[in-house]
Amino acid sequence: MSRNKKPSIEAGSSGSRRAFLRSSIAAGGALVAGSSSARAQSDTAITQVQDWARRLGKGVDRTAYGQPSPHEKDVVRRHVEWLTPSVQTAVNFTPLHELDGIITPNGLCFERHHAGVAEVEPDKYRLMINGLVERPLVFTLDDLKRFPRRNQINFLECAANTGMEWRGVQLNGCQFTHGMLHNVMYTGVPLRLLFEAAGLKTSARWVMAEGADASAMNRSLPMSKALDDCMIAFKMNGEALRPEQGYPARLVVPGWEGSLWVKWIRRLEIGDEPWHSREETSKYTDLLANGKSRRFTWEMDCKSVITSPSPQAPVKHKRGQTVITGLAWSGRGTIARVDVSLDGGRNWVAARIDGPSLDKSLHRFYYDFDWNGEAVLLQSRAVDSSGYIQPTKAELRQVRGTNSVYHNNSIQTWYLKKNGEVENVEIS
Amino acid sequence: MSRNKKPSIEAGSSGSRRAFLRSSIAAGGALVAGSSSARAQSDTAITQVQDWARRLGKGVDRTAYGQPSPHEKDVVRRHVEWLTPSVQTAVNFTPLHELDGIITPNGLCFERHHAGVAEVEPDKYRLMINGLVERPLVFTLDDLKRFPRRNQINFLECAANTGMEWRGVQLNGCQFTHGMLHNVMYTGVPLRLLFEAAGLKTSARWVMAEGADASAMNRSLPMSKALDDCMIAFKMNGEALRPEQGYPARLVVPGWEGSLWVKWIRRLEIGDEPWHSREETSKYTDLLANGKSRRFTWEMDCKSVITSPSPQAPVKHKRGQTVITGLAWSGRGTIARVDVSLDGGRNWVAARIDGPSLDKSLHRFYYDFDWNGEAVLLQSRAVDSSGYIQPTKAELRQVRGTNSVYHNNSIQTWYLKKNGEVENVEIS
Repeated sequence: MSRNKKPSIEAGSSGSRRAFLRSSIAAGGALVAGSSSARAQSDTAITQVQDWARRLGKGVDRTAYGQPSPHEKDVVRRHVEWLTPSVQTAVNFTPLHELDGIITPNGLCFERHHAGVAEVEPDKYRLMINGLVERPLVFTLDDLKRFPRRNQINFLECAANTGMEWRGVQLNGCQFTHGMLHNVMYTGVPLRLLFEAAGLKTSARWVMAEGADASAMNRSLPMSKALDDCMIAFKMNGEALRPEQGYPARLVVPGWEGSLWVKWIRRLEIGDEPWHSREETSKYTDLLANGKSRRFTWEMDCKSVITSPSPQAPVKHKRGQTVITGLAWSGRGTIARVDVSLDGGRNWVAARIDGPSLDKSLHRFYYDFDWNGEAVLLQSRAVDSSGYIQPTKAELRQVRGTNSVYHNNSIQTWYLKKNGEVENVEIS
Repeated sequence: MSRNKKPSIEAGSSGSRRAFLRSSIAAGGALVAGSSSARAQSDTAITQVQDWARRLGKGVDRTAYGQPSPHEKDVVRRHVEWLTPSVQTAVNFTPLHELDGIITPNGLCFERHHAGVAEVEPDKYRLMINGLVERPLVFTLDDLKRFPRRNQINFLECAANTGMEWRGVQLNGCQFTHGMLHNVMYTGVPLRLLFEAAGLKTSARWVMAEGADASAMNRSLPMSKALDDCMIAFKMNGEALRPEQGYPARLVVPGWEGSLWVKWIRRLEIGDEPWHSREETSKYTDLLANGKSRRFTWEMDCKSVITSPSPQAPVKHKRGQTVITGLAWSGRGTIARVDVSLDGGRNWVAARIDGPSLDKSLHRFYYDFDWNGEAVLLQSRAVDSSGYIQPTKAELRQVRGTNSVYHNNSIQTWYLKKNGEVENVEIS
C-alpha cells in the first residue's frame, strides 16, 4: 500500500499495432512475437517430444462438475481480513487482473454478505408479494419457472467498490480496488409479470425487497425501475445461482448499486413511499462535505479500470509489444468510448472496445502499444452512451468532499515501473 | 430408449401469454402463478420463520474457487459407457436440459478426447508456425499474450452430435442427443496476426492444426477461414481454458465442426493443399447412400432443440401456464426465426428469441403456452440468417441416406405425455 506518490516519469511511446509489428520483425532475432529459428533449435520444449504427448491422458470424469487446471490455483476470490469485523459480513473480491473478455465465471464472482450465506432449501423456498396489491401471492420456485423468462447480461457493482481510494488508502491490486464487480448472464422472470399477476393498486409507487438471510436485508425500489427492467433471477451464466449469489433466487436491478440486488429474496412488499431501511440510510448513502447525505444514489456512474498491467499483473518483458486491457461500464447504458493515458492524464489515445457492447454490461477494452521500457503512468477514462465522462479523483472530491465511502467512479492510476512492476499511486 | 414410436395424440392448445395469465387469474384459488392467500395460510414455509433466517450463514470462503449448491449435485456432465471403447476417447455430455440463457458454464461444457486430457505445463507450452512461411516462429504462452486480442461468443458442436438419431436409436434426453454442444466467450489472438508475423508465402492455401495430446490430433483448415475469424484462444468465459478444453491454448473455428477446434494446440503448418489426415477421411466425413463420402463438411448447419420439457426435464404440473424453451444455432450466421409445433409438425407458431443474437452463437428461444393437460408432440424448427430452414429427419435422409453418423441437424421430436413425462420419439 502506498500513499500520494507522485513519481516523475516519461511516457512510453505509443504506436499502431502494424507499425510495431513491422519494427519488431525487422529486428530479426529480437522478435517480440515469438523467436527466430535459432531460438527454436535451442528450445528443448519444442525440439523434444514433451511428456504429455507420450502418454494417454486422463479420461472423462464420470458425472463430475469440471474444475480449473491445478496450474490456475491462485486465480481465486480473495478476502481482506481487516476490512470487515467478521467473515459473515466480509467481501471476497473478483480477481479482475486474471480475467479477460466480459463474462465473470460463477466461481470467481465477488461475494459480500450481511449475515453470511443463507442455506435455502429450494423445495422450501417461497416468494411472497404483499402490500398494495389486489391479490397477495406466494410463489414456489416451480411457480416462478412457469412465467415467461428473460435473459440479460448485466454488471453488478457494490456501491463500496473502490471506496478505499477516497482518502488515499490504496490497496495494491485491482482485485481489491475494483473487484466488487462481476458480469453475468441472468435468466429470470420480469417483476412486471409477477406484479401483473398480483394486480397493483393505483397507489403502488414503491417496492420493498427483502432477503431470507438472518439480516433480512431489505431495500426500497421505485416502482418505475421495478417495472422497467428488474427481474427475479434463478440462473446465472446458464446454471442455477450460486449459494453466495442468492440461491435459489435473487433480485436483478440492472445498472443500480449491488445492495439493491437482494439475494435469497423472499418478499416484495408494495407500498406508496420508501421504507428508509438501515441499508439505505445509515449505509449506502453519500455523506457530503457539509455533513448532509444524499438521499439515494442508485445508478452506478460510468467507470473504468485497467486490469492488466496492474499491481497483481506486472509486465514480464523488458520492452516492446504490450497489451493494456481493462473494463468499462455504466449504469446508464452502454460505453461509447474509452481513452487510455500513458502519462497520468496529460495525453489520451482511443482504446479499442472488443466483444459485445450490451446495455448495463461490462465492456472490454484494449490498447496495444510498443513499450519503450520506461516508466508509465497508466490511466483509463470511459464515456458512456449518455455522454457522461468518467471524472478524475480531484473532480469527484470537488463535488463530494472526502467523507464518502460509496460511489467512487473516478479515474484510477497505475504506475508501471521500468522493472515491470506496477503500483497503485495517486497523482494530483 | 425407444424406436419408431408413432403415438396418436391431440395437440395442446396454444395461446398468448397475456390471454392465459388473464384466464388463470380469473380462476381464483386455482391460480397457476402462485397461490391465493388461502394457500399462504396453510403453507408453513411462509407462515413460519425458516431455519436459514434464524442463524448466521457461512462466511466467505478465503481464497477459494466457488462451487455450485449441494442441491444441484445432479447438474453435471454425463458419460454413456457403451458409446466409446475407453474413457480416453469418451464423451461427457452437457446437461442442456438443466441450463438456460446462452452461456455454458465452464464446468459443464461437454468434453470429447482422442487420447485423454493432455496435461500441458503452461511454462513449457509452445506453439510453432512452420511450412510455407518466411519466418518459422515458436511462441510461448506469454508471447501469445502480447498480441492484440479478440473476444467472441461461439458455439462448439461436435460433428457427431445427434448422430445416434440417424437410424432411430433414440437416447432418452437432450443431454445425450444434443449435449455435444457448448457456447462460451473466447478470448484469444486472431490467426491472421500470427500469420502476419510469420509472413505467409504466396503459395500458402491451407493450415494443418496439430494438438499436443498423445493422438497428435490434426485437421486441415483452408487459409480463407483461418484468416477470416479463427483464433488461438487462451480464455473461456473470462478465465483460463479448462484442461479438458485444451489448456492452455486451443484453436477456435467459429461455426465449423468441433474436431477442427484443435485442443492443446502445438503446431500450425502452412501448406498448399489439405493433408487428408485420419480425422478428416476415415472419420468426420459423411458416407452417402451410394457408398461415396463427402470430402469435407465444415459448417454446422442450422439446428435447434427443445431443452425443456424434454425426457430429463418432465413437466411437474397437470395443466396451465407452461414454458417451452430451447436452443437454436447456425454455423452460417445468426438465427432469424424459430418455430415450435405442438402437433408433430402439422402446425407451427413463432417462438420468442430472447437474449443477445450473436454470429455463430447459441440463441435461446421460448414459447409460453397454456397446456390443456393432453399429450403433445413437441418440435422446434430454426431458420438462419442465410434463409436456410432446419430440415425434418425424412428430408435429411432423402439427401444423405442412413449411412451417416455425423452432421445430423434435423428436427427433433419429444412426446409430452398426459402425466408430464417426456419421451424421445420418431414420427414419420
